[in-house]
Amino acid sequence: MSDAPKHHPFACGLDAAVAVVGGKWKPLILWALAGEEPRRFGELRRSLPGVSEKMLTQQLRELEHDGIVHREVYREVPPRVEYSLTALGRTLNEALAPLGDWGDANLATIAQTRARPAAS
Amino acid sequence: MSDAPKHHPFACGLDAAVAVVGGKWKPLILWALAGEEPRRFGELRRSLPGVSEKMLTQQLRELEHDGIVHREVYREVPPRVEYSLTALGRTLNEALAPLGDWGDANLATIAQTRARPAAS
Repeated sequence: MSDAPKHHPFACGLDAAVAVVGGKWKPLILWALAGEEPRRFGELRRSLPGVSEKMLTQQLRELEHDGIVHREVYREVPPRVEYSLTALGRTLNEALAPLGDWGDANLATIAQTRARPAAS
Repeated sequence: MSDAPKHHPFACGLDAAVAVVGGKWKPLILWALAGEEPRRFGELRRSLPGVSEKMLTQQLRELEHDGIVHREVYREVPPRVEYSLTALGRTLNEALAPLGDWGDANLATIAQTRARPAAS
């Protein structure tokens, strides 16, 4: 990651957006939080097959710090913690929709291309 | 990266799109190649301040393998190599536009938030 530029100032809006949403899991976390209801950690994790607890915790913390995800702690026994999108997070999720549509439309092509060995 | 799921099968379209365009430089490379004219390696590198030669070469190779970027070699002395978007790459670039707009609209907020120390 030493090759990455500093996060701010950003080169452009896309640079800033990618800084916030970059990485394998973040767009999928936004997607999983897009519904009306907030989600608990365990629910979130089950909806993201393959993510480790440590990774999900870290990604959620970064999204929270960037103002995309809201974390609400209910003082119950045991404590209940729920995650939801902030207003900013909802607009980011909407901005990701065309990228999801593109992926849906080209899923077969991409999978097929990736199944080929890379040219050396 | 051992935490990342396998690239195929993909969980959904967004998963596939992020697999193709994920990483710090790829959206910016697409953006830089979005014009009418193909770009030479040196031109591309100059338009992406902070990217190393090795990193740019690797990212371009992956984008080429995913069918997003076309690499044309002209047998001149010295050989000229030009990069451009494929038809698939152009549709991907269009799908990224709303994300760029979101970043433009929220550039100040994001930079400000990132300037704050992270909560421990």
